[in-house]
Amino acid sequence: MSARREQDECAQPETERGGQAGAPSERTRVRRMPARARYERAVVEEILDEALVAHLAFCHAGQPYAIPTLQARVGDTVYVHGSAASRMIRTLAAGAPACLTVTLLDGLVLARAALHQSVNYRCAMILGSARLLEDETEQMLALERFTERLIPGRWGEVRLPSVKELRRASVLAMSLKECSAKVRSGPALDEPRDMALDVWAGVVPLRLAAGAPQSDPQLWEGTACSPAVERWVRERP
Amino acid sequence: MSARREQDECAQPETERGGQAGAPSERTRVRRMPARARYERAVVEEILDEALVAHLAFCHAGQPYAIPTLQARVGDTVYVHGSAASRMIRTLAAGAPACLTVTLLDGLVLARAALHQSVNYRCAMILGSARLLEDETEQMLALERFTERLIPGRWGEVRLPSVKELRRASVLAMSLKECSAKVRSGPALDEPRDMALDVWAGVVPLRLAAGAPQSDPQLWEGTACSPAVERWVRERP
Repeated sequence: MSARREQDECAQPETERGGQAGAPSERTRVRRMPARARYERAVVEEILDEALVAHLAFCHAGQPYAIPTLQARVGDTVYVHGSAASRMIRTLAAGAPACLTVTLLDGLVLARAALHQSVNYRCAMILGSARLLEDETEQMLALERFTERLIPGRWGEVRLPSVKELRRASVLAMSLKECSAKVRSGPALDEPRDMALDVWAGVVPLRLAAGAPQSDPQLWEGTACSPAVERWVRERP
Repeated sequence: MSARREQDECAQPETERGGQAGAPSERTRVRRMPARARYERAVVEEILDEALVAHLAFCHAGQPYAIPTLQARVGDTVYVHGSAASRMIRTLAAGAPACLTVTLLDGLVLARAALHQSVNYRCAMILGSARLLEDETEQMLALERFTERLIPGRWGEVRLPSVKELRRASVLAMSLKECSAKVRSGPALDEPRDMALDVWAGVVPLRLAAGAPQSDPQLWEGTACSPAVERWVRERP
């Protein structure tokens, strides 16, 4: 995510985190900025588990779409929310190729030269096709994970789905078989000739911060605040 | 972004912000949760101007991809960063259909029933094809906007691109002609039968927060901190 020139890739390898395993498939191999590629499953899983929203890409009538959707991982599977009425679910449940991308923005990278402004980020990408969940046990597991990953412990506080509700809920699953990650971290990558410029350079870290919980205006009088929500807000970095 | 049932759309219109103009094209008409659709250009522009990262979807060899990229708007045009070497730029510069999606996460929506957990968000989507910038004046304008939208005033502090650098930078442009937005705001939408449950419900607001600027480890001794960066961090909500 930078307009940086090709040359920099060779001149200044930016990430020192080694240990890259190979790409799981040719099409998941990161071509652009290969030094940023990370193929270890643990890196992909960490990004998925931190990000709430994914963008799911698919084609419909020759037009690609990227649709934001909540995602939740259980083992080797990523679940995404949907509705049976939606174009996305219909297209993907029919077996169309898909790409699920999750991106975390970690910081603004402010370089000495305009062309080298960039951002620090972690991105995970999963290729493959999706399947629509039909088994009620797996549907329940996915819904539990959707709830628990928003606020751990919340599943134990809310009314659980009925069998009738499960039948109406549409959840898609994608396997982590073909996945890769791309990570940019660290300072700006200015060119040697710019290093002596009298221009401040650095990084401004970014993170998703939570505000104070706002109670529902229609809350039943005397309803205690959720311990799970209070704990989550208190423990966030 | 919720597994909510179809029925709710009619039973509980969630957004009271009226004034939706019509969709600019049939394929940009929001079908899923139409009450969340916003077709006013100002809403789309506001979302684009707040979000730093877009996901750009395109198809290559029958496989859809969603690639995260920095985006910057100037008038009716959205520019995205890239490199001439990348598959994305090559595919899109050749005129392939594209979809640029930008999503802002505004809050966790915690409902009384598991199935109604959701998030508040603002999403803008642009359909069309992209063009590769070739005109140096427009390239310079796009690069200025990329820099200024990260940190207003930064363009005046950094070394500006040379003509040689401009030639190597790849910037794509998409027109806002076919765009739409989708906004979810407000409290949880529980079903009437769940309203009396002894379960806390509410919203946890989320926002992208900036930390203290970290100076580049290779900064020239005596380089003053960037006034633009200091101002930006100080003035962030």
